[in-house]
Amino acid sequence: MSSAIGVGILGVGTVGQGVVRILADSAELLEQRVGQPIKVVAAAVRDLDKKRDYLPDGVALTTDPMEVLTNPLVDVVFEAMGGIEPAKSLILKALRLGKHVVTANKALLADHGTEIFEAARLAERAVCFEAAVAGGIPIIQALNVGLAANRILSISAILNGTCNFILTAMTRDGKAYGDVLKEAQSLGYAEADPTMDVDGTDTAHKLAVLVQIAFGQTVSTEQVSRRGIDRLEAADIRFAGELGYVIKLLAKARWRPDGLELRVSPTLVPKGSQLAEISDSYNAVRVEGSAVGDTLFAGRGAGMMPTASAMVSDLIGILIEPRSRIRAAAELWKPFAGAPRLINIDEHRTRAYLRFQIPDRPGQLAHLARILGDNGISIASVIQHEPETLASSEVVYVSLIIMTHLATKGAMRRALEHIQKTCELNGEPILLEVDARAGQPN
Amino acid sequence: MSSAIGVGILGVGTVGQGVVRILADSAELLEQRVGQPIKVVAAAVRDLDKKRDYLPDGVALTTDPMEVLTNPLVDVVFEAMGGIEPAKSLILKALRLGKHVVTANKALLADHGTEIFEAARLAERAVCFEAAVAGGIPIIQALNVGLAANRILSISAILNGTCNFILTAMTRDGKAYGDVLKEAQSLGYAEADPTMDVDGTDTAHKLAVLVQIAFGQTVSTEQVSRRGIDRLEAADIRFAGELGYVIKLLAKARWRPDGLELRVSPTLVPKGSQLAEISDSYNAVRVEGSAVGDTLFAGRGAGMMPTASAMVSDLIGILIEPRSRIRAAAELWKPFAGAPRLINIDEHRTRAYLRFQIPDRPGQLAHLARILGDNGISIASVIQHEPETLASSEVVYVSLIIMTHLATKGAMRRALEHIQKTCELNGEPILLEVDARAGQPN
Repeated sequence: MSSAIGVGILGVGTVGQGVVRILADSAELLEQRVGQPIKVVAAAVRDLDKKRDYLPDGVALTTDPMEVLTNPLVDVVFEAMGGIEPAKSLILKALRLGKHVVTANKALLADHGTEIFEAARLAERAVCFEAAVAGGIPIIQALNVGLAANRILSISAILNGTCNFILTAMTRDGKAYGDVLKEAQSLGYAEADPTMDVDGTDTAHKLAVLVQIAFGQTVSTEQVSRRGIDRLEAADIRFAGELGYVIKLLAKARWRPDGLELRVSPTLVPKGSQLAEISDSYNAVRVEGSAVGDTLFAGRGAGMMPTASAMVSDLIGILIEPRSRIRAAAELWKPFAGAPRLINIDEHRTRAYLRFQIPDRPGQLAHLARILGDNGISIASVIQHEPETLASSEVVYVSLIIMTHLATKGAMRRALEHIQKTCELNGEPILLEVDARAGQPN
Repeated sequence: MSSAIGVGILGVGTVGQGVVRILADSAELLEQRVGQPIKVVAAAVRDLDKKRDYLPDGVALTTDPMEVLTNPLVDVVFEAMGGIEPAKSLILKALRLGKHVVTANKALLADHGTEIFEAARLAERAVCFEAAVAGGIPIIQALNVGLAANRILSISAILNGTCNFILTAMTRDGKAYGDVLKEAQSLGYAEADPTMDVDGTDTAHKLAVLVQIAFGQTVSTEQVSRRGIDRLEAADIRFAGELGYVIKLLAKARWRPDGLELRVSPTLVPKGSQLAEISDSYNAVRVEGSAVGDTLFAGRGAGMMPTASAMVSDLIGILIEPRSRIRAAAELWKPFAGAPRLINIDEHRTRAYLRFQIPDRPGQLAHLARILGDNGISIASVIQHEPETLASSEVVYVSLIIMTHLATKGAMRRALEHIQKTCELNGEPILLEVDARAGQPN
């Protein structure tokens, strides 16, 4: 029908190979969809000798990414290297050379989106990144187009497959975090250095990208209050279970008239709710829109083929609707959009799960309850089991779990400080957020 | 920035009023998204005197739809009348007059798509219908764009809010179908004449639309094997529960190398799976793609604002990417695509739930099991409770439930015919499909 669309790939690791595989396996289907054949014409790799299961067929590999970018047959560049540099410089260069860009690089977008989309605006080219958030789930497209009639009111999302895999195993097997992490590493579900995943940073990157699309505000990863799963104790997963909840690492964004609440934190969600049922390495995004109400989007959040699915779908989008893709990119990460309006974490309102190890003696619960009440925090339910060992000369501690009604995190912080000062607790008190609304839609 | 986009509305009932409300309430947001103000300039109604909570502001209502279509200020026509005629003629007329069309009319698309999209091709205009399937859930957009890199392998969906509301209540309260239907009618969740909803026709309409998008095949509603919930007995919901399942009205499409399996039927899905947790009037669509694996899209499937959300999102899509929307419409319901390749229902492979009322006497189970085995159907599990009344001179019947492994529906039909001929069953045997895979993603 007409000449081929040329694709250049930077990085032929797992995701890059997935892209090559879809472009080869579904060549006919894709040509039918875009009206032209698509061809990988250049690919840059770090090591020419490394064995790859899916090699671009008939493509001379190069170790010099500039050869890919300057190749006149390349129309669209896939950045599948990850990391900040040299990915950033190469994307900027590709845009200046008039190429469209498809990337899955959430860390880069979250913290350097302003520079990248400024270059896209100047070059009048598209930068698409469906794969950057929630892998194969077309959530960027849903927010940009499918839910375009809506003001987005809130987002609650499970965005890190590694954490969800670990939490699912901890919940199912009652094992400790460290043991499950080792298993996840041996199965390939966690990196050798899992820090960015388990401390919530990766989830915060993805939340920053979602916030840009859903609320048009530029937020740096540093501005997202975040806590990971790396300090989560098996005991809290067990107690949460007794109360009818499971613990998920949730990214949350909530629109308020006075600004956005943003946070990443391990959160109790009711068993049987949609987010509670998202297991293993699956991701899910719950979006509440002003007209549509609650919606849920779920699927595989990572991996070779789901990520490549999103990247190739972006390519098709660029080819069949270039003007709207260029226009959409031009609206993102505007440098003149001003500082984001963020709600201080102390002003976030949430329900909470509190766990204290208190001495097993009279008056303790009354004392704690009074301090909570003095700080305007009302109690929804309490669990305290009998001590497992009998009292001896040593102090016996028992776990006291208190579920609160809605209160600000500032009030909770002040109450916990007061409790720590005036009670002989064993260890630090534990505070986890509770999302009673994670139930919708169901 | 530039002149206003003119919207004409045919039918200002619930959905039409929802459209008016979004266009008024979110005028600023929408203008920002499309770069131009959007204005309702004409609206046709049946009764000028009827009270409406959301009236198009400053719009002269008319009882003559042609006045809306011929209004030169109208760029996009919203068809919100429902039914086949006069909706069909008006849409065809609107296209010939050069207007884009947004509709939620699944019955019309399912059975007259060929004529409508032929007109769209000739007029080079878009016909968008996100609202026709699963209400506010952007599933059409997801299949068209977000998952465009995939060959769709299967779709399993809950597409009728009325049926799901009734099934949820039957499951929760253990009540009979007729009683729950009356409640649903009094609450406004079911129409006075609920036939099209409860007999599976509405779900079949929506499945036919999904099949067009996902597989590019034109299927008439008549070609979809369908069974509704109107003959479902409370006993089967109860036994399914004992076995760890809930019953949902599922629309299923499965791609096979030799053709498509299409059907609508009450189906057992495992408790705790994503589809099982879709309750009340919510809808959900599970899509299995060749690259992305399993994805799930859930949300409100009907109602004023969710439906209007989808229709206004379509409008925004038409305005920001007209060429890709016109092109997408031009690819649909092509008259020269040939007959669909459908698998005869007898060749569908499924697991099944079978219930028999057998006489409480020796040898019955052995006899049934032998007939099933003779037809190549193997048994996965069996429940038979002790009879509730003691044997007397009359025959006592007991319920025998057999869960089978995968087999063709033809083999099951033959086995059931043989069983009916050779056993003294009380009433007809019950056969319900079992979807063991409804569990993903979870």
